[in-house]
Amino acid sequence: MAKPFTKELSALQEARLAYAPGMPEILRHISTLDFAAGAVPQVEAGARPLFTRLANAPVLRVVRGQPEKRPLAVGVVLSGGQAPGGHNVIAAIFDAIKEVHPESRLVGFCNGPAGIVKNDARTLEQEELARFRNQGGFDLIGSGRTKIETETQFQQALNSVTSHRLDGLVVIGGDDSNTNAAYLAEFFSQQGSPCVVAGVPKTIDGDLQNSWIELPFGFDTACKTYAETIGNICRDAVSAKKYYYFIKLMGRSASHITLECALKTRPNLALIGEEVRAEGKTLQDIARLVAELVVARAQENKEYGVILVPEGLIEFTRDIGELIGELNRLLAREAATEAVEAVVAGLNEGARRTFAMLPQEIQRQLLSDRDPHGNVQVSKIETERLLIHLVNMVLEAMRREGAWQGKFSAQPIFCGYEGRAALPSNFDASYGYSLGRVAALLVMRRKTGYIACIKNLCQAPAEWEPQAAPLAAMLHLEERGGTSKAVIQKAFVDLSGAPFQCFAKARTSWRLDDCYMQPGPIQFFGPSAITDSVPLVLSKSR
Amino acid sequence: MAKPFTKELSALQEARLAYAPGMPEILRHISTLDFAAGAVPQVEAGARPLFTRLANAPVLRVVRGQPEKRPLAVGVVLSGGQAPGGHNVIAAIFDAIKEVHPESRLVGFCNGPAGIVKNDARTLEQEELARFRNQGGFDLIGSGRTKIETETQFQQALNSVTSHRLDGLVVIGGDDSNTNAAYLAEFFSQQGSPCVVAGVPKTIDGDLQNSWIELPFGFDTACKTYAETIGNICRDAVSAKKYYYFIKLMGRSASHITLECALKTRPNLALIGEEVRAEGKTLQDIARLVAELVVARAQENKEYGVILVPEGLIEFTRDIGELIGELNRLLAREAATEAVEAVVAGLNEGARRTFAMLPQEIQRQLLSDRDPHGNVQVSKIETERLLIHLVNMVLEAMRREGAWQGKFSAQPIFCGYEGRAALPSNFDASYGYSLGRVAALLVMRRKTGYIACIKNLCQAPAEWEPQAAPLAAMLHLEERGGTSKAVIQKAFVDLSGAPFQCFAKARTSWRLDDCYMQPGPIQFFGPSAITDSVPLVLSKSR
Repeated sequence: MAKPFTKELSALQEARLAYAPGMPEILRHISTLDFAAGAVPQVEAGARPLFTRLANAPVLRVVRGQPEKRPLAVGVVLSGGQAPGGHNVIAAIFDAIKEVHPESRLVGFCNGPAGIVKNDARTLEQEELARFRNQGGFDLIGSGRTKIETETQFQQALNSVTSHRLDGLVVIGGDDSNTNAAYLAEFFSQQGSPCVVAGVPKTIDGDLQNSWIELPFGFDTACKTYAETIGNICRDAVSAKKYYYFIKLMGRSASHITLECALKTRPNLALIGEEVRAEGKTLQDIARLVAELVVARAQENKEYGVILVPEGLIEFTRDIGELIGELNRLLAREAATEAVEAVVAGLNEGARRTFAMLPQEIQRQLLSDRDPHGNVQVSKIETERLLIHLVNMVLEAMRREGAWQGKFSAQPIFCGYEGRAALPSNFDASYGYSLGRVAALLVMRRKTGYIACIKNLCQAPAEWEPQAAPLAAMLHLEERGGTSKAVIQKAFVDLSGAPFQCFAKARTSWRLDDCYMQPGPIQFFGPSAITDSVPLVLSKSR
Repeated sequence: MAKPFTKELSALQEARLAYAPGMPEILRHISTLDFAAGAVPQVEAGARPLFTRLANAPVLRVVRGQPEKRPLAVGVVLSGGQAPGGHNVIAAIFDAIKEVHPESRLVGFCNGPAGIVKNDARTLEQEELARFRNQGGFDLIGSGRTKIETETQFQQALNSVTSHRLDGLVVIGGDDSNTNAAYLAEFFSQQGSPCVVAGVPKTIDGDLQNSWIELPFGFDTACKTYAETIGNICRDAVSAKKYYYFIKLMGRSASHITLECALKTRPNLALIGEEVRAEGKTLQDIARLVAELVVARAQENKEYGVILVPEGLIEFTRDIGELIGELNRLLAREAATEAVEAVVAGLNEGARRTFAMLPQEIQRQLLSDRDPHGNVQVSKIETERLLIHLVNMVLEAMRREGAWQGKFSAQPIFCGYEGRAALPSNFDASYGYSLGRVAALLVMRRKTGYIACIKNLCQAPAEWEPQAAPLAAMLHLEERGGTSKAVIQKAFVDLSGAPFQCFAKARTSWRLDDCYMQPGPIQFFGPSAITDSVPLVLSKSR
């Protein structure tokens, strides 16, 4: 049983406890709401046999209906990395089911999906929840990354929800966790369990997006937190005129965070992984590109600048991407203690050349830091430092050739963990809360295998449109660890979409002119708390 | 001529333009103010011969006086690292002298003291200044670290102020820059120049403090910015329960920032350089101390934590402090290309042993990154990474001995540059503005060799007490680069003072219990913008 985190709060934390999150008008009277069926989206042929119960489910929209008066028992679990707004999802479910009936119960499974399997759970009460409203972190019940995969685990999960006599289980998570939710929903249904499973889209990375999900919650706060730092760094750069700041941003699989932060702060250069891949660039190409920027700025007497680098950049590059693939292939076969020489000898020629170009420290990281499946842990590679190293090499070569004689002083910065557990912005506090109410409604109306959605997020919360979309329709077959599995696809930055196009058009002038913007710290009160409220990747796509 | 930075502003930047900084009531009607002489503080005997003009100056307090109606010409320069509130000092001088007479002129010297020497200056006008009110950065006129040291430079500075027919020069800077201001004031006075020199205390590090200066401006915003990140990281730590975060904080010479941030966020451990020195601890001792914390927390099933590390920590340790001293001695004598082996051979035995304990990367940094005087650049040493390395070694030794079998996964984080150019807090916006008005008054009343001060900072700005203190009284003789020089002494954390004592008393319970506080982002509006407003090291010392 995890002990909750209920120590003394700061003045701002206290002030936030009193915030009343916004929500779609229709969600205010939960006990008289129901769903109306819309179109039935196509389920991918390969996934259909796996989801006989969930297939053919229509998209649902929220409408007024008959009052529901029975008490509800709902389980909730947080899955994966922290995202601001998570506590509000839980608080919303609690409020909603208590509005339906004061004897409703909310059971929190502790420390992620492992808590469902082990039945590590406790009932959440108003008094405790009151300290977590509009607060950051996932510490109320903890989170975890265990996946429910084996037959035994599925059965244990069913035993757990049955032991608590749950009407529903709400899974708050990203693409993997919601994939898991779909499998659980199908399993429970096949086993004749009355417990429905509902998903809630969460991830600061922003890569859980599709026709129904405009954005996951948490992305807004994380980006605003990073943009505060980046904007400050930009202002420092143009004041000190001394450093090139290489700012690495979280987001391994996709570069949504980098794109949003670039739109917010207008750095001299922002690398977008998806574009790097589309153009087949190598990391060496990128180093040259940055060096060219340094040289061009030096001609304007600017020996400083700000460059945004997505955490996952190197996986998008042709050379390092191939090297990592090769290493994963070799390392998976070998013991972890394999000698460096032997691994290197096994690489194909291109990969070997790429490997040789890397500084020792990175070579070491590539070989020694592996995940449980033997794969290279790309998130441990300090991309920003690697890039600085390579840019330095290009510039020094130019210096030897007499093509450059400037100063290049670089500082690596990482915007990461501090964005995951930040106090949720008004947007995320309201969004998380609204999603939680839709999830509660899914349980109340016994709809399984759905994910809570809110459309029209660019408008004020009162104008938001609550929906629910069938998880099965988001699944598609992917090769994972040698076997084919139905998963929710990660959403990449769409290079033809309006947000990227808007960035692509503006960035030329950001290179040499300093167009830096300083968004400043998230404001919860005052004029900019309102005008700043929607992520730019959303508003630009309108 | 530096081009100012006047691009598009963010919503919050725009909102901040409209903020009216607070100030002591008496400062509102500048043209009828004067100074009354108070006590005459002692000037150190060694400094007296150097400051024949400035010695015997009394402390000044602001009183009502006869109206002043003549136009004033004032020069202003920013010196050293950025600190939030700097633009407000400049705006305040401008407003004050324009209130005295609309034909008053404000001349900005560009890119630091070098701008005075080279007479790189421009007249600042209302329209331009309007875009910089309550904004971060030093980019209006830039800053720099050049010192005015040679006879020629002093003469050039005099020529510059004379060419602009300045009544006064305001130097906004830290201990070194205000030392320089004292020398300039003495020189101008000896040369019969009518140009007075006034100082304004600036530095995020907080190490410019004495009987007259409660705190420099900029410290508050920087600490609040860092505390936002630290509080978020604490919340992440207790949510993910996975990592030990080692957070390095700016502040090389003194640990004021770390102390303030510790009071604000309550980490599991905060290292204070001054205490490390007082106890004669080695870096190895500290590594053992951290390892003990890790072991003790593991016994409570906590394999995560947050540890604050001041940037200058290693200089306070006995072993590394000695090693750096030895290296400085050896390297200063040798050419920069000196072979590693030769340098190491020249070390005394203790220093050689210490050197051998360090990872290669740090050894390289110690030998290769030197400042123009040949000194080791301690700020380039990644203390947080070094400490993680050493803690790992201690823990692995314990593991081999069977004394520990846990997991220690550490993440280095640096809170630095993003705090220097942040949007100033309401406190710093008001404090900088009030200091600027006192500086303008010093010029108006022809008082030279003074630094603007505000007492009673724990109260609301209207209750603040403006003063001016003679710079000569802050000077004392110090050994610098082999010669004795009169300088303003850096203020260290006072281990017997109330702020440290308050920390020392509370920290025991922070080790194992998680008492983390999350201050959140600086708020400019709403309830916490008021209740949060005074630095804790100030309020605790009341």
